Amino acid sequence: MTANDGVIHEPRACDSALARAFNFLGKRWSGVILGTLTQGPAGFSELRRAVTGISDSVLSERLTELVGAGLIERFVHDGPPITVEYTLTVAGKGLLPAMRELTTWAECNLPA
Amino acid sequence: MTANDGVIHEPRACDSALARAFNFLGKRWSGVILGTLTQGPAGFSELRRAVTGISDSVLSERLTELVGAGLIERFVHDGPPITVEYTLTVAGKGLLPAMRELTTWAECNLPA
Repeated sequence: MTANDGVIHEPRACDSALARAFNFLGKRWSGVILGTLTQGPAGFSELRRAVTGISDSVLSERLTELVGAGLIERFVHDGPPITVEYTLTVAGKGLLPAMRELTTWAECNLPA
Repeated sequence: MTANDGVIHEPRACDSALARAFNFLGKRWSGVILGTLTQGPAGFSELRRAVTGISDSVLSERLTELVGAGLIERFVHDGPPITVEYTLTVAGKGLLPAMRELTTWAECNLPA
């Protein structure tokens, strides 16, 4: 028990898994890239158009991080023309229930 | 329809409410402060201890923003000693289902 600030109760702490989720998804653009890919596979230039304000170099960096974290995959399709596509992995698709809840919450609680 | 990157499908876009949620909760510490308050009311110094690495001035700024967004409330209890407590509002508690989903996902997909 703790009596901080004069109020007696158990010490507060954010769940560590939740803190990891916020630290990871809170990195600028990462969440929006994943949210875009919930609609289906997309190429680099599509993602750049979908993620307003991102530069090529930052998008490239974020995609590399998300591939490294096992949340998205990069596929190269033999051409011609050769095309590159990014898709959610099973782990990335695992975020869908959380994203649906976040969307519902934001529709009700964050003004457009 | 669009033929970007050689792949033909509808243009991709992140849902705008979801993008607002990521932009808002992605601000450093905001999600962790809300995650901490899901455990119950907490005073300033408790939150500072719970949110590892945050400074007094940044915590103060984030709390003001979260009060302004209507997600938390600040209560002053007459003393002695006078105590200040922060709690989630109804809108803040509305994040609970999303936070539960994020926690489950992070437990399975983000290494500790």
